[in-house]
Amino acid sequence: MPTHGERNLELGNQAYAASFDQGHLALPPSQRYTIGKHPQPHLSSSSSADRGATVTCMDARIDPTAAFGIPLGAAHVIRNAGGCVHDAFRSIVISQQLLGTREVIVVKHTGCGMLTFDNETARAVVMKKRGEVAAREVETLDFRTFRDLEIQVKKDIQWLRIKPIEENIRFSGWIYDVETGKTTRVV
Amino acid sequence: MPTHGERNLELGNQAYAASFDQGHLALPPSQRYTIGKHPQPHLSSSSSADRGATVTCMDARIDPTAAFGIPLGAAHVIRNAGGCVHDAFRSIVISQQLLGTREVIVVKHTGCGMLTFDNETARAVVMKKRGEVAAREVETLDFRTFRDLEIQVKKDIQWLRIKPIEENIRFSGWIYDVETGKTTRVV
Repeated sequence: MPTHGERNLELGNQAYAASFDQGHLALPPSQRYTIGKHPQPHLSSSSSADRGATVTCMDARIDPTAAFGIPLGAAHVIRNAGGCVHDAFRSIVISQQLLGTREVIVVKHTGCGMLTFDNETARAVVMKKRGEVAAREVETLDFRTFRDLEIQVKKDIQWLRIKPIEENIRFSGWIYDVETGKTTRVV
Repeated sequence: MPTHGERNLELGNQAYAASFDQGHLALPPSQRYTIGKHPQPHLSSSSSADRGATVTCMDARIDPTAAFGIPLGAAHVIRNAGGCVHDAFRSIVISQQLLGTREVIVVKHTGCGMLTFDNETARAVVMKKRGEVAAREVETLDFRTFRDLEIQVKKDIQWLRIKPIEENIRFSGWIYDVETGKTTRVV
């Protein structure tokens, strides 16, 4: 028996593929994106200075394509719990060094689960629910939770800025409000 | 001067927020999703057994919401270079242990940049472009490239299966074709 997720992926993808007409897009992101549903034909001709990566949270309430105005082919989208730049480091290096992006946009959001627990709580949950073997698996894992959204956006950008991986990268940090759908720039 | 990315995020978000009506969605993903543009009002009432996380690549040509039929609020979406489960581990633990998801769908894709280089090549690129300080930063970084798409999907699912983090998790692995927009199940 397929799960709900599997069934919906299959059905949703059938509908998507039936009208798909973007098979020509280039591998490197373009980021010279314009507003609207349809990517422009000139997307892949933009200079590398315009290409970028967006780092945001895995939260189910965020749709970066729609909420941040990113059409298909326009930017790398990196997502993890909290929109954490440390977890995204490997991806950012690849994005910049192998695929030529020159901008990083970090977007965290209101109501983030990462504001609601800490390493100690998380490890206790695993221990209680799953026992010692599972607890050992996460005893050195940093869950990278945070207590203040705005401060953490600034810290993440600062962490990226001092990395010697690429020069002349444009950084910006934002907060997305899951109740209003609005983004606000922090840094 | 704002960059293209910043300007487009601001403009794209203005349009999105102006018609946003999904401020009521719950933090935990629902995954009992149905096909269509609009999430159903009953989304957040599904049981935890239906909740899931999708792991896919950061590639600019992938729009998981549209291509995999995931409406707002339905599933965690974790993305990184290659749709790598190792990088996603912290996020998956949080998704399952703190937010109650019980399914992981891994989707890699044709034409992935991760098929085109290896650790040695990547480190040489960093050394050549950025010099010794940057090269030292990535000398222990595993770029987690792979040579065969289907084999890597299977390996990733296998890696997740043997982790003792949660029981009775449903796993499936897929390949998305960036030229046709179609997904095919591998495992």
